[in-house]
Amino acid sequence: MKGKVYLVGAGPGDPELLTLKALRLLRTAEAVLHDDLVALEILRLIPGRAQVHNVGKRCGTKKIRQEEINFLMVALATSGLRVVRLKGGDPLIFGRAAEEMESLRNAGIAYEIVPGITSPLGAAAAAQIPLTHRKAASALVFITAHRASESDAVDWNKFVGSGATLVIYMPGQNYSEIAGKLKSAGLAANTPCAVVSAATTAHERTHRATIAELHRTPKLAAPRLLIVGEVVRSAYCVSTAEEFSIPGVTGLRDNSLPAAFFKDVLLRSSPRTGEEEPIA
Amino acid sequence: MKGKVYLVGAGPGDPELLTLKALRLLRTAEAVLHDDLVALEILRLIPGRAQVHNVGKRCGTKKIRQEEINFLMVALATSGLRVVRLKGGDPLIFGRAAEEMESLRNAGIAYEIVPGITSPLGAAAAAQIPLTHRKAASALVFITAHRASESDAVDWNKFVGSGATLVIYMPGQNYSEIAGKLKSAGLAANTPCAVVSAATTAHERTHRATIAELHRTPKLAAPRLLIVGEVVRSAYCVSTAEEFSIPGVTGLRDNSLPAAFFKDVLLRSSPRTGEEEPIA
Repeated sequence: MKGKVYLVGAGPGDPELLTLKALRLLRTAEAVLHDDLVALEILRLIPGRAQVHNVGKRCGTKKIRQEEINFLMVALATSGLRVVRLKGGDPLIFGRAAEEMESLRNAGIAYEIVPGITSPLGAAAAAQIPLTHRKAASALVFITAHRASESDAVDWNKFVGSGATLVIYMPGQNYSEIAGKLKSAGLAANTPCAVVSAATTAHERTHRATIAELHRTPKLAAPRLLIVGEVVRSAYCVSTAEEFSIPGVTGLRDNSLPAAFFKDVLLRSSPRTGEEEPIA
Repeated sequence: MKGKVYLVGAGPGDPELLTLKALRLLRTAEAVLHDDLVALEILRLIPGRAQVHNVGKRCGTKKIRQEEINFLMVALATSGLRVVRLKGGDPLIFGRAAEEMESLRNAGIAYEIVPGITSPLGAAAAAQIPLTHRKAASALVFITAHRASESDAVDWNKFVGSGATLVIYMPGQNYSEIAGKLKSAGLAANTPCAVVSAATTAHERTHRATIAELHRTPKLAAPRLLIVGEVVRSAYCVSTAEEFSIPGVTGLRDNSLPAAFFKDVLLRSSPRTGEEEPIA
């Protein structure tokens, strides 16, 4: 009997930002194929008997091609296993899920997609940046700078100048180039922006600047995001061009390890102890 | 001592798409202010001793103003309570969080934001629509049609014609008007689109059409989303202009109630039974 593949979003980093469904699937997986971007604390949730394959293409030294990932996923499912394909953030946003779904369909493998918190939502929550605003931003645009030099790259001009908040995934570290691109797309030099590195993890750093100051951004670890727009003005840190990290914002930092969460909260929620209302 | 407010995303509907952190905060809340859009199965997770206030502005008969919500939130926290402000989807996307954060800051109340799965991610996962695509969509745009008639509404022309996937929150039911707006913004009449109603719940319905066919969309329950772009072509259902629902896609439908999840999976994950690896 053929197995099944779950394309699961691991969220932005903090293990507490996994969904209940992602946790259930990880705890019952027989094989897991994960990206480099998935946090170690999350990988520790995978049962010891499961096969675990790091198929990260970005940061690792291995250069695994997308076709090889597709092949491995199909092979594991064909052998009858319950496979979790674990992706950073949400699987359907800049995750090449379309190609993975196509290969699963072609192979006749059942699959299901489990959404995750895409990283800008985690970054914005940590830095307290409203991504939309009734007065300042009535649209939200996600783009990637990864392929900025390719001919089919998105024309950024399309997305600026109409009160949209712009989130650039994988902005790289050539901030002068990005600032130039944003300015030539029509954004004012004093438009506020924030580079968020390792959002929702213990290593999170947020650097605030204007587009004019963006070239002075310090070196920050991947994964990085760039948030551009008036909404950044109301971010946690009100001074500009300043690097800061926010202590105690996410569960990871509040409560150290997920183990504490399991023991203290989830077990307390169970009908066994009866401390809380039974769950109907 | 002053309490604290957690602005928490409840996700798109399926209780299993709550984050672990949202569950922990709900299980330990002393007061909860929730939107109409939050599913009953999620509200059942709130302990019986907590105060629960429905502050929904959209569907309810009560006409509570944003200022009243802000006032109530501040009053509860000032009295020392641990308050959860529970919002459908993600709190920072079309949720008026900016105003709530401002009132909390002004009152000197500590607060924290907990991201949630914004509804398009749930809808796209259920309908298997990749929101971005290496060949077909290198940008993703979230807008709302709610204020389409207001003078400060987003100019949709900005966002089309460059291979972006367009997600329209709260599209209303005047599909002829929306279709006209999309066409005059430059989109081809044969551009595929999908209306998703009650995404990730047992009542989920997805209607696929082209922009030209959109006016024949049947009456579907709120909350609704409209997804527009070439990526919709690769949705679960390959025929056009057809209404369908996808059985067994989310945990809600797979596993009926969250209670089963608590008993069967989370307790099994605990060190008490030792069936799985201990969580490091």
